[in-house]
Amino acid sequence: MNGYMGKFLRINLTDSTITNQALDPKLAEKFVGGTGLACRLLYDLVDRNTDPLGPKNVLIFMTGPLTGTNVLTAGRIEVCSKSPLTNIWGEASCGGNFGAWLRFAGFDGIIIEGRAPNLVYLSIKEDSAELKDASLLKGKETFETQAILQRELNTDSLKVMCIGPAGERLVKYACIVHPDARTAIAGRTGMGAVMGSKNLKAIAIQIEEKKAIPVAYPDKLKEQAKEMAKATMDNFGSQMFQTLGTAGYVDMANAMGDLPTKYFTLGEYPDAYNISGATMQETILVKNSGCYRCPIRCGREVEIKEGKYKLSLNPGPEYETVASFGSNLLIKDLKAIAYLGLLCDKFGMDTISCGSTIGFAIYLFEKGILTTTETDGLELTWSDPELVEKLLHMIASRQGFGDLLAEGSKRLAEKFKVSPDEVAVVKGLEIPFHDPRAYFGMALTYAVSARGACHCQADHYLATIGNIGPGVYPLGVESTDRFQSEGKAKSVALLEDYRALYSSLILCLFTNPPTDQVINALNYTLGTTYDMAAIKRIGARLRTMKRLFNLKMGITAKDDRLPQIVLNPLEGGQEKHTPNLPLMLQEYYAYRKWDPATGKPTKETLEELDLAEFIPDIWN
Amino acid sequence: MNGYMGKFLRINLTDSTITNQALDPKLAEKFVGGTGLACRLLYDLVDRNTDPLGPKNVLIFMTGPLTGTNVLTAGRIEVCSKSPLTNIWGEASCGGNFGAWLRFAGFDGIIIEGRAPNLVYLSIKEDSAELKDASLLKGKETFETQAILQRELNTDSLKVMCIGPAGERLVKYACIVHPDARTAIAGRTGMGAVMGSKNLKAIAIQIEEKKAIPVAYPDKLKEQAKEMAKATMDNFGSQMFQTLGTAGYVDMANAMGDLPTKYFTLGEYPDAYNISGATMQETILVKNSGCYRCPIRCGREVEIKEGKYKLSLNPGPEYETVASFGSNLLIKDLKAIAYLGLLCDKFGMDTISCGSTIGFAIYLFEKGILTTTETDGLELTWSDPELVEKLLHMIASRQGFGDLLAEGSKRLAEKFKVSPDEVAVVKGLEIPFHDPRAYFGMALTYAVSARGACHCQADHYLATIGNIGPGVYPLGVESTDRFQSEGKAKSVALLEDYRALYSSLILCLFTNPPTDQVINALNYTLGTTYDMAAIKRIGARLRTMKRLFNLKMGITAKDDRLPQIVLNPLEGGQEKHTPNLPLMLQEYYAYRKWDPATGKPTKETLEELDLAEFIPDIWN
Repeated sequence: MNGYMGKFLRINLTDSTITNQALDPKLAEKFVGGTGLACRLLYDLVDRNTDPLGPKNVLIFMTGPLTGTNVLTAGRIEVCSKSPLTNIWGEASCGGNFGAWLRFAGFDGIIIEGRAPNLVYLSIKEDSAELKDASLLKGKETFETQAILQRELNTDSLKVMCIGPAGERLVKYACIVHPDARTAIAGRTGMGAVMGSKNLKAIAIQIEEKKAIPVAYPDKLKEQAKEMAKATMDNFGSQMFQTLGTAGYVDMANAMGDLPTKYFTLGEYPDAYNISGATMQETILVKNSGCYRCPIRCGREVEIKEGKYKLSLNPGPEYETVASFGSNLLIKDLKAIAYLGLLCDKFGMDTISCGSTIGFAIYLFEKGILTTTETDGLELTWSDPELVEKLLHMIASRQGFGDLLAEGSKRLAEKFKVSPDEVAVVKGLEIPFHDPRAYFGMALTYAVSARGACHCQADHYLATIGNIGPGVYPLGVESTDRFQSEGKAKSVALLEDYRALYSSLILCLFTNPPTDQVINALNYTLGTTYDMAAIKRIGARLRTMKRLFNLKMGITAKDDRLPQIVLNPLEGGQEKHTPNLPLMLQEYYAYRKWDPATGKPTKETLEELDLAEFIPDIWN
Repeated sequence: MNGYMGKFLRINLTDSTITNQALDPKLAEKFVGGTGLACRLLYDLVDRNTDPLGPKNVLIFMTGPLTGTNVLTAGRIEVCSKSPLTNIWGEASCGGNFGAWLRFAGFDGIIIEGRAPNLVYLSIKEDSAELKDASLLKGKETFETQAILQRELNTDSLKVMCIGPAGERLVKYACIVHPDARTAIAGRTGMGAVMGSKNLKAIAIQIEEKKAIPVAYPDKLKEQAKEMAKATMDNFGSQMFQTLGTAGYVDMANAMGDLPTKYFTLGEYPDAYNISGATMQETILVKNSGCYRCPIRCGREVEIKEGKYKLSLNPGPEYETVASFGSNLLIKDLKAIAYLGLLCDKFGMDTISCGSTIGFAIYLFEKGILTTTETDGLELTWSDPELVEKLLHMIASRQGFGDLLAEGSKRLAEKFKVSPDEVAVVKGLEIPFHDPRAYFGMALTYAVSARGACHCQADHYLATIGNIGPGVYPLGVESTDRFQSEGKAKSVALLEDYRALYSSLILCLFTNPPTDQVINALNYTLGTTYDMAAIKRIGARLRTMKRLFNLKMGITAKDDRLPQIVLNPLEGGQEKHTPNLPLMLQEYYAYRKWDPATGKPTKETLEELDLAEFIPDIWN
């Protein structure tokens, strides 16, 4: 027995067929699992003309070879599809336990195509799966959906991933929520809209007895898993995330000029402390929460006892949400931020794209490009949580001006003929809340990342400030001067490759045991003998596969850019520094051996990475 | 040429003799430098009956083999003597550049005995030294002293260590200030009082041309030094200290219950943010400052533009000062804290012992043990920066009630017959501002540490939260559950040994490159071939030497204890946990092979560590 992935549920919603599909083991050997394997599969299933919200798009829920093992954070799942927000590669990583439960039920992944005539949900119980009518769930918020399904299926231990009203209404940045824990959301690139377009409200898993996860050397893996958990906590960053949550980084971010403020136009936020993890800890925090076997437990559970934003015990906001609805919109009331973030979770909307789109709208209103004529009479102003609350309702229901905002920033800019340099998106995806002027590695990351502006395809800001740690640096990822452009590309590329592996295994990028240990874990699972060189090659293959997908969707080198709004020099911790993106891109293409004119990997590169089969597709 | 230390200035102040003394190279080989070498020398020079403030006590300024080399933080100096505060081993580590300058002037250390008939200062210029009249400096504050000496000696590049009025008045916790940078203070155990008792106001170094520092393999050391600097910054903690200063830890400390509040009687401080590094950064910070070749630059320079605590550009408070005058005294005004901290620096008083003694006095006043009769009519209350300002003046001048406070907490407790369990000292030294209930490793550290309660002899709290990093863990120092008592002793002991080496080399404990690199640096300097085992043995020898010194001073196992006031369970991040100190002590003595009844190292241990010559002293 080896640990390769191979057993999939294939579901055609159009005709309600459910089949068990076995995967060619060579594919799993080559593309590992998670986003790597999903990307390889999707490459064959969709093309440039596929409507992301049409029945021909394919939505994949994918686990990895470590999923469900003893390894920390190995409960994650990746959701992949052609993105309706960007029309390119879409992926969203979800923490919690759903991935582990899917494998415990006997499946390594779910491949979903077609469109159900009416709203349905997928019920998975042990080895079997069934599509069920979801008309009772229509319009329901995510947490409510989980509660209804628990009642309907008469079990508390149900693991659910579902969409909210935003997904049903095809909000372009709708997400898929796994209501187990706050961190458990497949947030970015509009995977919830794809699910909505298929009339699939939820997937629910029940298990009576856990199926064994294939592991070549279970005892060795168990030992290794312990070491990995320990090594992860041997890191000041992990301890800080545990103690103060990811929002514990707010103060440091602000001091470094990394906390985007007023839609990326200010270099610092004087009220940062009000929205920090420390303030959360001292005001609304009740307890921590965490994902499958994770020792960090960066999740927060909060309660707001009284006032306008009264909340019972509920998931609290993490860093991105705090920045999105906080500094980005100049809102300093953490209770309001927690409330707005939770509203997004309930409606099923990505807090990053949502807050950024709202910020962009306020920015346009301030410039006079939007007026009350377009906004249904609303005055769009900064520091107005009540306005944001209204807008969230309008977006989720696509009501009035909300219908425009539901399309995301890029389409809003296009509609009002705003220069692409004024809208904080890359390849159509809203830039997350780490300022590329504070860490030049992030400027390059955003410009080239496979799913548009992304802080997870390479979390180079964390490498720069030492959170990734010496055990990972032997890979070649380096901590370098944050304001240095020269020589940054290789480090960014190596981290991209490593994270492509991470999202294929699947591991959370907050867990950073020495690379050796990650390699061991994979070898003990698969029975392989990969070494550092082999792992680097696999990582590069996985990352390159996503590039191939994007090339097929029409992406070229000229899409690897940043808008000027995130490059203008600012006062603050960034000290008016701006990255030299052209230089970094040049070095990046050179390191990757990608043709700088077209952004295509050279034939030699593809051969080196055992991706020669794609040469005819891209070089003809 | 090898890099052993060997050339000392020996000064007898009683008869004003200054001699150059060469040291037996075997001593330097065995005890390295810094506190290790100083302790070995002092062991022969003082005994149980030596009055720490009498002419027979000896004050040693000691550099280490790395001092003045390219290695980061290698500008430090250690000041050692029998402590007037504790009557045992006294040491105080000072950052900045003084150590490097002393070696550049041609000396590895200064050994000072006797007492000058009138106030003098020592002027070192190149290879020569001279005692000069200091009557003009009498009563002058530290920064002023430096300014006067610069004028008198007509040079701006003077490096000075001096005492303020508190040292002259023999305040038991007077410190020695090196006014180059905020972090540059030899703070603890009253070394300033010893200097004052000798009528030595200052030491001033001028150099025209730097003497070469002996290094066996300079090119290799240079390369290694670069790697060490880089590795130090590959650490999230270093980055945090750079960005927010050491007070950047305040929020995390508070969340963990590590921020002593209201003289150790509360488990958290609701106003912590007001005194945090982030608040400093956003309010009074002007720029960072740093020590010799240090890439971290954790020092802060602040300015307060108006109000009661108006200050021109001056050193700002670090973590211990912020806690001492902040949470400890329930003062939430960071400007007041900065002002009070600076006052201590000017007067030349250790902010830890000073704030703690004041906290203890307020605690006693609240209990009715002290009344306005004893306090010159002062109402001692919490949250009163004006009161503290008054007391600082009274202490430094030993005026009225200030004369009592100038004796430190232990003597204050004795005078008013307060149980030793109510006063936060160990072996007479005030407990610094890391709560032993938050990190059980610190409970053991405080109980056994060579200079009384100390967070630097082993910074085990930083090991526990991963700031020391995986590169150091191969040594055996472990990050373990902070609330675990069992199995903690070995890790604490190993860290004590490593830090004993650090304070002998001399390196700052905020710099934590992999241990290999530190070993290399020592080998490249000395021309030795030490490996990890050898280094561990040397570290254990250095730490054990301090124990031998304390045994000679009368310390026994029963002094290795903690007062109950820091063991009472508290609400807050400590979650009412309390360490099992007896268990940890038992394991500690067992690991160290110290006799648990007497606290003496066994003969076998002393033989193993090449300290057999001391067997007759302690086992007869």
